[in-house]
Amino acid sequence: MVHYHKIDDYKYSDELENYRREHKKLSLLLSVTRNISQELEIDRLLMLIMDEVKKALNCDRCTVFILDRDKKELWSKVAHGEKEIRFSSHLGIAGYVASTGEILNIEDAYSDERFNPNIDKKTGYRTRNILNAPLRNKKGEIIGVFQTLNKKGGAFTKDDEELLSAIAVLSASQIENAQLYEEQIKTFDSFLETLASTIDARDPLTSGHSKRIAMYTDEIAKIIGLDDHKRRILKISSLLHDYGKIAIREAVLTKEGELSNEEFEHIKEHSNYTKSILERINFSRELRDVPLIASSHHENLDGSGYPKGLKDKEIPSLSKIIAVADVFDALSSKRHYRERMNFPELIKVLSDGAGTKFKDVYIEALKRISLDNIVIIMEDGNKHKIDPKDLEILSSYNMNDLLHSGEKGNRELKVLFNKYYLRKHRRENIREHNEKNNKH
Amino acid sequence: MVHYHKIDDYKYSDELENYRREHKKLSLLLSVTRNISQELEIDRLLMLIMDEVKKALNCDRCTVFILDRDKKELWSKVAHGEKEIRFSSHLGIAGYVASTGEILNIEDAYSDERFNPNIDKKTGYRTRNILNAPLRNKKGEIIGVFQTLNKKGGAFTKDDEELLSAIAVLSASQIENAQLYEEQIKTFDSFLETLASTIDARDPLTSGHSKRIAMYTDEIAKIIGLDDHKRRILKISSLLHDYGKIAIREAVLTKEGELSNEEFEHIKEHSNYTKSILERINFSRELRDVPLIASSHHENLDGSGYPKGLKDKEIPSLSKIIAVADVFDALSSKRHYRERMNFPELIKVLSDGAGTKFKDVYIEALKRISLDNIVIIMEDGNKHKIDPKDLEILSSYNMNDLLHSGEKGNRELKVLFNKYYLRKHRRENIREHNEKNNKH
Repeated sequence: MVHYHKIDDYKYSDELENYRREHKKLSLLLSVTRNISQELEIDRLLMLIMDEVKKALNCDRCTVFILDRDKKELWSKVAHGEKEIRFSSHLGIAGYVASTGEILNIEDAYSDERFNPNIDKKTGYRTRNILNAPLRNKKGEIIGVFQTLNKKGGAFTKDDEELLSAIAVLSASQIENAQLYEEQIKTFDSFLETLASTIDARDPLTSGHSKRIAMYTDEIAKIIGLDDHKRRILKISSLLHDYGKIAIREAVLTKEGELSNEEFEHIKEHSNYTKSILERINFSRELRDVPLIASSHHENLDGSGYPKGLKDKEIPSLSKIIAVADVFDALSSKRHYRERMNFPELIKVLSDGAGTKFKDVYIEALKRISLDNIVIIMEDGNKHKIDPKDLEILSSYNMNDLLHSGEKGNRELKVLFNKYYLRKHRRENIREHNEKNNKH
Repeated sequence: MVHYHKIDDYKYSDELENYRREHKKLSLLLSVTRNISQELEIDRLLMLIMDEVKKALNCDRCTVFILDRDKKELWSKVAHGEKEIRFSSHLGIAGYVASTGEILNIEDAYSDERFNPNIDKKTGYRTRNILNAPLRNKKGEIIGVFQTLNKKGGAFTKDDEELLSAIAVLSASQIENAQLYEEQIKTFDSFLETLASTIDARDPLTSGHSKRIAMYTDEIAKIIGLDDHKRRILKISSLLHDYGKIAIREAVLTKEGELSNEEFEHIKEHSNYTKSILERINFSRELRDVPLIASSHHENLDGSGYPKGLKDKEIPSLSKIIAVADVFDALSSKRHYRERMNFPELIKVLSDGAGTKFKDVYIEALKRISLDNIVIIMEDGNKHKIDPKDLEILSSYNMNDLLHSGEKGNRELKVLFNKYYLRKHRRENIREHNEKNNKH
């Protein structure tokens, strides 16, 4: 009896212990899954996965390395406390796991020859033990590597290996989904940029206009603190604000000298075209307001604008931002019907319109964009065409400083800024010259 | 001792039983999660979820109803064995769950007044018991309802309720992700359609051309059995094949009468523009070949085409499909430089080019498109503008029947088809007339 009792007891307690461990593992796994399944934005997802794994495995660090098949590199955008890392996909322990697909559980990192101690040297971190597992997609292809470091209170166990492998399966799906989604958005945004450029390019003097507007409005958005969602709507509306020009006659668009009343009315029609064309697009809920926002950038606060003569609060806020950026870019560019404007004149036109045409707060935000960014935008975003030393200097100032540079005693700033402002006009003159030659 | 033994035994076996049940539930849940996390395409995802839930709960049916907030309706696209269902979101048991957020476990459907027996009457199905649970997104909003019917071998248990609720949490995330992804793709595709239309509309006579091409090529794709992936590439390339025309001068594009050599060369440039503009777009991996495919639709098998003079196997297959559809649509439309063509003439031009210009197999596929679809495309996809009775008749024939309608003794078919072919030309004549009036 006693003998029987003992056996039964052990049997139960063993089985119970197994179930307890298994239950803990499954619960952890489910909790990780539940959390990561809610995130489709890739950067946030990777951050989240790393945090969840750290908690679930009770270890000090976790990094997800993603395999870049084209470049044959592993990269991690957001390792804890570090910037983007990139290295050849056969290097180090992560590289070993990416190549072989094996799980590696290394109790003592420094005694393993695949371990590269230089990273510890650089960062001052002390790696004790390492657990790495491959991330595989549904086709079984390796798409990345999980790297976890320094199990708290000991070494990584067999249970940790199993848990990490299971998390890897679910993470891989979610990462691939997020990558698909990101690619889709990137394709769309890059399509809009290209489209905006081709429409602007019908008139050589407005070449790059919409892309620059999108950059100016994004700077204003950052200064006034718009959220990511609104920034995206603003960016897309900015890129598309002149879409309607596709329906304006070439002869009017590129006419030299002043426009007749009738021609000006025809050009003004572009806002209506923008609206009616964009309204035919089946925009997602998120982007539902784009047609209205994009087409209201010529409305004025006092109701004197077009196409509808909307007043103040009837005008979407984001349109008011586009309006300021649009005028700023137009005035700082050459046009067929007028000569270029110098910088103080230009700001005066904007300031004179404050409260009647433009919302003051957005003009003020515009003036606070740092001058390095203004110059980069004037160069159509081609940062590499600007002397890095100049950029460094310009980054400490904004338009206000430029306007008051007399007071601040910084005449050199004016000279430096004008160097790039004049360069832009030189480019525009050359384009206009080439266009005339093409016509004749 | 015996007494002690008994208590201990019960304690162990109770706890063990709990763990066993819990373990089974978690394992089922994980297996469901693993499977559904791999699918981002909404229709396939919903199908998959329904299959997985059916298996996990060991019941006869599962339906996911999605809440359409705008229309205040619940819908299910792919219920097992049924077509799309749609009903007001407060009706029936699913409606009750969508409104209250409660889980409903009904042992006897027919004794519950919320149950609507008419559906059973219509379908011949016999509902015994029902378990419904709400689908909530991360914000806690109800996005749909899980409905499971007829637990095998009895009623739904408390464990089933818990399992279905847990599956609902994970399914809701994945469904929302899939919806986001789908919206993104729909926005992009609809953007491309609108863009193609605005470019075509620069010349009233080519209005709708690209959209029609996309419809013709998709019909050919279905006939030759292309997979979904290739069909999407073909659709996008078809919509964008004339994108380069945005860079062609208006005066040349809409010139009446014959073009000079120089003007024709300028128009031919549109293929190069299509390529160079599309190459600036950061297309996703999936769509990487679009620029080449879209810009090669004027290449001929014998190398006599443009822009590159590619030969046979150098030309992407999908471009060869676009080439056939492009010529078919162009020849069946009016042009500034020539009068309309009658139908047998048109087919002769295509057939004469078989093997030298066009790939024979795609001409054959084109001829096999049923005539109702041809007529719908000629009406720019506006099916409602066509007499349903005519559509019914036309659906039994294709172009081969039309060409051989003498032999088949079906002269009436010719008359019927010509009714719509002539209608298209009448529309084009009106557009051309209006354009002339606008110009003068």
